[in-house]
Parts: sequence; C-alpha cells; structure tokens
Amino acid sequence: MPGISGEKEKVCIIGSGNWGSAISKIIGKNVLAHPEFNSTVKMWVFEEYINGRKLTEIINTCHENVKYLPNIKLPSNVVACSDIIECVEDATILVFVIPHQFVKSTCEKIRGKLRDDCRAISLIKGVDVSKGGLMLISEEIREALSIDVSVLMGANVAREVALEQFCETTIGYNDPYNGEIFKKIFNTSYFRVNAVQDVSGVELCGALKNVVALAAGFVDGLKMGSNTKAAIIRIGIAEMKKFSHMFYIGIKNETFFESCGVADVVTTCYGGRHRKLAEAHVITGKSFDDLEKDMLNGQKLQGTITSKEIHQILTRNNCTEEFPLFSTVYRICYENLCPSHIIHDI
Amino acid sequence: MPGISGEKEKVCIIGSGNWGSAISKIIGKNVLAHPEFNSTVKMWVFEEYINGRKLTEIINTCHENVKYLPNIKLPSNVVACSDIIECVEDATILVFVIPHQFVKSTCEKIRGKLRDDCRAISLIKGVDVSKGGLMLISEEIREALSIDVSVLMGANVAREVALEQFCETTIGYNDPYNGEIFKKIFNTSYFRVNAVQDVSGVELCGALKNVVALAAGFVDGLKMGSNTKAAIIRIGIAEMKKFSHMFYIGIKNETFFESCGVADVVTTCYGGRHRKLAEAHVITGKSFDDLEKDMLNGQKLQGTITSKEIHQILTRNNCTEEFPLFSTVYRICYENLCPSHIIHDI
Repeated sequence: MPGISGEKEKVCIIGSGNWGSAISKIIGKNVLAHPEFNSTVKMWVFEEYINGRKLTEIINTCHENVKYLPNIKLPSNVVACSDIIECVEDATILVFVIPHQFVKSTCEKIRGKLRDDCRAISLIKGVDVSKGGLMLISEEIREALSIDVSVLMGANVAREVALEQFCETTIGYNDPYNGEIFKKIFNTSYFRVNAVQDVSGVELCGALKNVVALAAGFVDGLKMGSNTKAAIIRIGIAEMKKFSHMFYIGIKNETFFESCGVADVVTTCYGGRHRKLAEAHVITGKSFDDLEKDMLNGQKLQGTITSKEIHQILTRNNCTEEFPLFSTVYRICYENLCPSHIIHDI
Repeated sequence: MPGISGEKEKVCIIGSGNWGSAISKIIGKNVLAHPEFNSTVKMWVFEEYINGRKLTEIINTCHENVKYLPNIKLPSNVVACSDIIECVEDATILVFVIPHQFVKSTCEKIRGKLRDDCRAISLIKGVDVSKGGLMLISEEIREALSIDVSVLMGANVAREVALEQFCETTIGYNDPYNGEIFKKIFNTSYFRVNAVQDVSGVELCGALKNVVALAAGFVDGLKMGSNTKAAIIRIGIAEMKKFSHMFYIGIKNETFFESCGVADVVTTCYGGRHRKLAEAHVITGKSFDDLEKDMLNGQKLQGTITSKEIHQILTRNNCTEEFPLFSTVYRICYENLCPSHIIHDI
C-alpha cells in the first residue's frame, strides 16, 4: 500500500462540477500539507467550450472553474484533464464526485485500467434499485471496479464550503487505514471531518434525507407551526434509521447523530430545493414535473426519484405501513394524494 | 394504587399559565375518555383580578384563561381553584407546570398534605445548582415530597398545542405503570406521546437545548450559512449527550432521538426567543440584560441562566475544555467574549 511502502499516494478527482470544484480546493491544499501525498492532484473534467476556450485549459491557466464555481480560486496543483484513463491510471485514490447517472458508464470506462492498490471515496448522493433490491452508489463502484470504497456525506453546501464557512462532514469507511488517509485529504479547520466505520449508514443518510425534506416542505406549504415541522423531521430521522437497519447489516445508530445525519437533515429541511419545491407543490397545486421545469430549468429532484425507489423496496418487502412518512411522501409525489395527509397519515 | 384497586385516579394541575392552560385542555378531555380517571380535574390558579373579576371565577364560568391563553376554550370539567391545599389533598396525580422559581415554595406548602399513593409529572424546564452539583426540577420535587416524579418535555409551543396542530412530546418515567397512566392523560391524535424510561435524559434535553439555541442565534447574527448552523446544532446535541452521561447514570442515547431531543433542539434553534435574543446580541452589541428589558419586558431568558449553572458544574469538575460550545456560550453571555468565537473555539 502506497502510504505504508513509502511510495506517495496519488489523488485523482473524478468530476469537476460545483461540489467537485469546491472539494478540489481542499484536496489541493491538503496534499501539500502531508508528506505521504504526491503534490499533483488530477481532476477529470468533462470537456466543454466556454466562449471558445476549453474548460480544462481555463482551469489550468486561470485556476478557476468559471462555469461551475465562478470567483473561487483553485490551487494550482489541481490539474484538469479531460482524458479519464490518463487521470486514473496511476492514481491510488479516486474521489468520485460526478452526477449519479454517470457512475455506471464512468466505471465501465476505467475498469481494468486501475492500479491494484487503488481505492475510492464517493461524494455522490443517491441510491438505485436493481433486481436484487436497493443499490448504494458505493456498492455500484465497489462491484464495478472491485476496490474498497468509502463515502463522504454531510451538511455541505458547495458554495459555503468554497467560501470557507465552518461546517462538518462525515466519512464512512470500511478499512480503518483508508479512513485515516481520507481524513487527511479532507479535514481542514473550517471543514471538520468525523470518520465512522459505517459506509452504508453514512450513504443512506445522504440519500434518504431528501425524502424527509420533501415532507418538511409539505408542512411549510400547509402553513403548519414549528412544532409540526420538528415532529416531521424527528419522525423522518426515525424512519431513516429503521429503513437502514431493515435493509443493511452493521448500521450504527450513532451515525445518525453525525453531520451526515441530523445536521444534513436539518439543513435540507430548512433550506434547499427539495423543501422549496415541495412547499410550492402545496401552494400552487402544480405537479413536480411542472415545478422542475419552472423552478429548476427542467433538472430533476433527487428526492422524488429516491422516494419512488424506496417505495418499490418497501412494497416488495410488504412493509409500506411501517414507514408512514416515506409512503405518504411517495403518494403525494406520484399518486396525487392531498398533501395534508403528511400530517394525518403518520 | 388507585388504577389497580379500582378507585379512580384524580388529576390535579398545579399551574395555569400559557402551557398549563394548553395542557389542561388535553387532560380535561382525556380523563373523560378513560374510565380509570375521575372526571373532574382541579387546576391550581395563582389568584389574580382581571378587570375586577377573579381569574378562577372567569375560568370556571367562561372556561377560558383570558389572561394566559385567550380565545381557547377549556373543558368544563377543568375546575380552577386558588387554594393549593384544597387542590392537592385528594389528588393521586400532580401535574407541575409552574415557573421554575416557584417550585420550592410550592412544594413546601403541600408537603405532608398529599395522599400516600400520589405521584407527579413535571412539565417545568430548567435546572438548579446546589452545593452538591446539578439539581433537576424532578429531583427537587422528588426530594421535597418523597413521591415518584416523571417528566414531559418536547417540541411543544403552548399556543400551537392549544390550536391542535400536530406535534410530538416525550414522557420520561421511572415506574412503567406510571408511564402508562401518564400516556393516557396526555396522548391525543394531534399531541403524540412517546414514553421512555429515562427521566433525567428527557429533563436534561429540556434544560440544555436553550443553551444550544443561544449558540444558533449567535451564528444567525454572524450571518453564517446554513451549513454552519447545522454544525452548531449537531455539536450542541453531542455536548448535551456528553454532559448528561457525565453527570447522570442510566441516560439512554436513544432519548436524544425523541421529541424532547432532536425535535425540540431544532425548533428552538430556528424559532423562539433564545435564538432571537442571541442574534440581537450580535447585531446590536447590547447585553442580555438590556435585550431582556427591550424585547421581553424584563423577563429573564432561561438559557443564559442555565449556561451559567452548567459552567459552574463544568468548572467544579475541571472539564470546561471538553464542552467548547457550552463554555463559549457562557463566555459570550457573561464575559463579553466576541460572538465570533462560537465558530473559532469549538
């Protein structure tokens, strides 16, 4: 293993959107501060032309991702590259931070091109439903590449992190050595990392919290008081815990007290677009499809998709009734149920 | 014991402020729905004159507490009475819902006047510091009257409860039989009770959350983003847990997932007067004494007092450094520390 053998760890960031760029600022600085890392961090960029110039070229000369994270300087040791194979082939650490829907195709491209001692950490939020049941992104990557995969999730708005506003985040790891290495890559005085040995628990928090935020948005739209919203948040966290324990082994209750748990649920239920669109659904009566067109330029909400996937799993396991909040959110989003049921049915 | 022997339980509410009146509405209805309770609920009222009429007389004829909970009808089987001995002497259940500072004098008045099978539940938030250390209100009542004392705490704004908006609450009990009885007295479709066998845990949540809300208010005043506020809330809950475990035996981690825990912390950190005054302290630079005069008609905040009491305990036990959030809140409130330390020192 690189760190142990004396060879230097080489970090590659796969993705360069809003969050990928914000996190590259932290990684770029941290590899310089710790002797076990190579000083260059490669960042895979999906090539685009901005006013006739390649985005990779702009990043490598101006050190700014002008499209996805404007006005934030990136460290000069973060080197953008549009050739995914060139990016990953000598890396010992892959940081996945691409949109959910590109995970499969990206893994297919790099399969067999990685070093034997390579491992990954996923910053991607979401779950998939396969024939076998629920599939976490970390599981998809682990299966596709046969490498160890950790995750990082927390109450982290990309722009606030880029502006160095204090927040916390949670790393879920399997292998304690990797947990330590990842902590060195990500921890700073303003971006405080807690690492817990519970990959699935941390990742499920990241995916399921969006469903809770929809419920909170409905309550806001219904103009209920603060007590009601707090109750919805509490019941949401309880269903997140119950769901995680029901479908995964080794989930730790303490994980839900981490930044990926209570902090991320709270911030998503008080701010963010899930809450906002759910509130607008109640007030305007418009469908989520229409609201996504009006308010998100047609981009899809992750939470409504997750709620559908969760519902499939619960139906298949005959236990929708044990999850009244998740089930009611699904029925409001997909079956035209009146939003007031979020209060009456749970 | 009354319920067991076939004799009816007699409930007496000690207190008739905002919260006492709101809860009397629930208790009055519930005793009629369960055969084990006597249909009359006595409510002790500190006698006042409203436009020349006694408050007890107004409550008993108009069934409304015009001073503390106007425009809400109380059940006619809730009978107001200004003689505390007459109220308690045949009661089997006492519901304490008076201001913190009147607990001692009230207990002194009724000591020796109670039935042998009487027990109590406290809805009062706060802690005291005695020579021996921290003293919970339930402990004060238990010591003064030598009876079993449960507690009820949660994300419960009196007016929202009176308007029957959905919320949850937590009962902490010692004796499971009493836990069951109290659940029958308080649980309704819109006021959902969870009962846990952890009196101290539930009560500590109710007291300590106000200190966390002060920290959240400072963050708001500093105009930090949502990530930072979520981190402060999470760290606050972690210190609440740590403090509870350090000074009390038998605290259950799960209690902090109940309404008295995460839900009440969240609602107090986003609404409520602790958050508001702490924010105003940052923005105006005024002392809490002045802000209490300006914004609360001179009424004192519970949370600043609690933070001082907590600080005494931590200092005495040489562990202020293990509680950076609690300690920083204390220093901002009482030692003129610049509020930005709430970010830098934790």
